[in-house]
Amino acid sequence: MTELGLVHIYTGDGKGKTTAAVGLAARAAGDGIPVLFVQFLKNMPTGELVSLQKLGIPVIRGKAGEGFTDTMTGGELAESRQIHDRNLRAALDAARRGECGVLVLDEVMAALNLGLLDGEPLREFLDHRPEGVEVVLTGRNPPQWLLDRADYITEMKKLRHPYDRGITARRGIEE
Amino acid sequence: MTELGLVHIYTGDGKGKTTAAVGLAARAAGDGIPVLFVQFLKNMPTGELVSLQKLGIPVIRGKAGEGFTDTMTGGELAESRQIHDRNLRAALDAARRGECGVLVLDEVMAALNLGLLDGEPLREFLDHRPEGVEVVLTGRNPPQWLLDRADYITEMKKLRHPYDRGITARRGIEE
Repeated sequence: MTELGLVHIYTGDGKGKTTAAVGLAARAAGDGIPVLFVQFLKNMPTGELVSLQKLGIPVIRGKAGEGFTDTMTGGELAESRQIHDRNLRAALDAARRGECGVLVLDEVMAALNLGLLDGEPLREFLDHRPEGVEVVLTGRNPPQWLLDRADYITEMKKLRHPYDRGITARRGIEE
Repeated sequence: MTELGLVHIYTGDGKGKTTAAVGLAARAAGDGIPVLFVQFLKNMPTGELVSLQKLGIPVIRGKAGEGFTDTMTGGELAESRQIHDRNLRAALDAARRGECGVLVLDEVMAALNLGLLDGEPLREFLDHRPEGVEVVLTGRNPPQWLLDRADYITEMKKLRHPYDRGITARRGIEE
């Protein structure tokens, strides 16, 4: 067994990015590795949250609606940025204290791309991170500085999706 | 919410196919949907097995070593086929009896492509399946008849992988 300590990116327009992060968290937890799961933007009550908790995986998240930047006021945007920055900082601090062997930053790309998260603390963490922490990053369009620091990059490519024929997200499957 | 009943394929050479299937199973279970997980070929004791069981998800699997067709004797091949066919039949029967809302057939493509599984019962099931059963299929190189029956097709494309620089599978992450 090689030590933990690599960086994963799950990206692309296909289904399965968050899903794979949840699966990886479940696998690691099943092997007794402590996992910390941070969910950016998405804050709906979801089945994955219930299951992660059942597996003893702590989940850090903000509050509902943070992703809808189009309809947010300046004050709401500033508040959302504060929440995301604080959540990231809390997670990185926990990782530095050795509290997790796997750190999942779900939809961190979206938070970065929407300008709802300062990437600098993450870049700093990746460049000087403690040994034995595997980092999993998900979301579309990762910035180049993140790609440069990744050991795994998997693109989830949508070849077919029922959205394309008008079937919307279903609870327990997409949400 | 749209009813369950669609067919997912996770394929490609990238990391994340089984992982996404595990994540989807966890999400559905967290929403109270009964899941049945069938693992073809891979039978190592893994963290995901522990976690799936913790989530109350029954797992049907064969026995170790079934995937190594190169080193198997004729008798072993025949036995492996029997096990796989029997496991598939048991899972499809359970789905027909309404025992699951999500049926995962993990690495079913590999079992089909190695000639270790008869696909006919699966084709028959997909064409006449009971309502309300979501089917999740994983593995490389799905045959055309499966692609034709899928609602979601996601290709996990490997853009970078540490295998390429000699880092082997790590327990809790890949296994």
